[in-house]
Amino acid sequence: MSTTYDIVAIGNAIVDIIGRCDDAYLAKHSCPKGSMSLVDDAKMSALYAGMGPGIEISGGSAANTAVGVASFGGTAAFIGKIADDDFGRIFAHDIKTSGVAFQATAQKGTSPTSRSLILVTPDGERTMNTLLGISTELGAAELDPVIIAAAKVLYLEGYLFDRPSAKAAFRQAAEIARKAGGKVALTLSDGFCVDRHRDEFLALIKTDIDIVFANEHEITALYQTADFDDAVRRIASDARLAVLTRSAKGSVVVEGGNSTNIAVDPVSHVIDTTGAGDLYAAGFLYGYTQGFSHAKSGRLAAIAAAEIISHTGARPATRLNALASQKGVL
Amino acid sequence: MSTTYDIVAIGNAIVDIIGRCDDAYLAKHSCPKGSMSLVDDAKMSALYAGMGPGIEISGGSAANTAVGVASFGGTAAFIGKIADDDFGRIFAHDIKTSGVAFQATAQKGTSPTSRSLILVTPDGERTMNTLLGISTELGAAELDPVIIAAAKVLYLEGYLFDRPSAKAAFRQAAEIARKAGGKVALTLSDGFCVDRHRDEFLALIKTDIDIVFANEHEITALYQTADFDDAVRRIASDARLAVLTRSAKGSVVVEGGNSTNIAVDPVSHVIDTTGAGDLYAAGFLYGYTQGFSHAKSGRLAAIAAAEIISHTGARPATRLNALASQKGVL
Repeated sequence: MSTTYDIVAIGNAIVDIIGRCDDAYLAKHSCPKGSMSLVDDAKMSALYAGMGPGIEISGGSAANTAVGVASFGGTAAFIGKIADDDFGRIFAHDIKTSGVAFQATAQKGTSPTSRSLILVTPDGERTMNTLLGISTELGAAELDPVIIAAAKVLYLEGYLFDRPSAKAAFRQAAEIARKAGGKVALTLSDGFCVDRHRDEFLALIKTDIDIVFANEHEITALYQTADFDDAVRRIASDARLAVLTRSAKGSVVVEGGNSTNIAVDPVSHVIDTTGAGDLYAAGFLYGYTQGFSHAKSGRLAAIAAAEIISHTGARPATRLNALASQKGVL
Repeated sequence: MSTTYDIVAIGNAIVDIIGRCDDAYLAKHSCPKGSMSLVDDAKMSALYAGMGPGIEISGGSAANTAVGVASFGGTAAFIGKIADDDFGRIFAHDIKTSGVAFQATAQKGTSPTSRSLILVTPDGERTMNTLLGISTELGAAELDPVIIAAAKVLYLEGYLFDRPSAKAAFRQAAEIARKAGGKVALTLSDGFCVDRHRDEFLALIKTDIDIVFANEHEITALYQTADFDDAVRRIASDARLAVLTRSAKGSVVVEGGNSTNIAVDPVSHVIDTTGAGDLYAAGFLYGYTQGFSHAKSGRLAAIAAAEIISHTGARPATRLNALASQKGVL
């Protein structure tokens, strides 16, 4: 009997340290609000020391998406690298008990499990400062071709492009998936990440990527335009399928000349936007892999994103299939 | 200039791993609901593996109380032992940035920082399984006599009685505090803890302890009676001052022949009772050290306990002095 996975996600295995701060704190430490910055030990320590008490909860962009798909009742696997430390054990426990297949062996050595210090401002916006430890050492050795070939959709995190060996592993995994008949999806991850890898992302989107996920900031960064509609026109001709999110303005699914607008699922009070894009992708991909229409998949995406921003942390606090069922979508 | 502390707390330095489970899970693993059990590595691993995803947040009974006093605007210090690992760094960061003086040096070695797996059932009740790592190695070397002598109240966690060296340190600290003119408070911690140390607790209460904190289960365990009123009569003659909590039935402050009943602060939905007793003690001790009446101190205690059970985790999510001020008590 061969297993298939609705999605196999490859990304950074990260534990989030979530704390609250005000806008002045971000300004003082030159943290661009809403972005993800890569930081070294010294910067991480300085930011952490000045921040109030935190809570620790598993995260990682693609990992959050895999957990979201599983929470909808889909099948998911995650590939990422952890160290043999407390944070590594937390990450492994949480993703496995969320119903996501994860077989990484914790590595002993000098690099710690990756962690992201997430500063949440009173408006609920999150600003991330990530210490990329062992997760960026992901390479070909971590790719299980059997699992990757079993993916309906291979989901790749743009952040992985920040290290050459991870980028090479990323390309290799995409090839395995495509040869086995799977689709390949890419999330652009962050505006600065797009700036760092614009040309490669564009080339990939035109050739090897079946579905691209981006928010407004990322897609306009990709095309170096201030005009969202301009970016939509350009991605429509470059990508086979693009899913573009616009925070409170909803989202749009672009497939060639056709686009489907998706409204947001209303939230009375935004607590923490960490994981909003990741869970949006989870809802869309769950619907996509079940063969649902873009409109229905987008509705699931909006429900998952609304759930995640209504509490602290980027992992669902309730079963998403039950939530979608209550709302009459599943 | 010499510093004084409203409270100096000595206890286990613990990071809580909080997850949800149903009553059947507790029964299957023979965990007495509402209690704290000491577990070994194997039991901890089995319980953790079968539990869903968790969140990590600093805890420790006396440490929670110290943080609560600081959140009311009082001055607090904490003495406890951490290892040089991720959990130790989390604990140290969180307590220091909560405004509590904490000067422990993280110890390198084989014992990890202590952690407690807290299983929260749908009724909000917590059941704790604690792996006592390095925190139980607390000994005389960790006692800073200058800090202890500066305490208005030295607050001691009954759990420390579970290891001889910690118990000896506990007695030594009490002597330092009393000689310097401070009061000594003891929390009985847990019904099973009382069963393990009944005679010693009773002897201490009659001689060296100025204020004893206990919940209904602990005080009836101390006197091996099923009748709360009977236990109240007996503690009234044994203790100088006793503060007894009864969950939803409120609490009573017993000082010789006088008792003051305190009503609970209503909570619309109990999420997680972890830390309820610890924060109750924080509110009472803050009031006590400011010279407030027992009624007013009890009101602060009830407000702090209500805040903590309305969210996950045993550290306040809001400033307790602001909350008490909103309610017209401060």
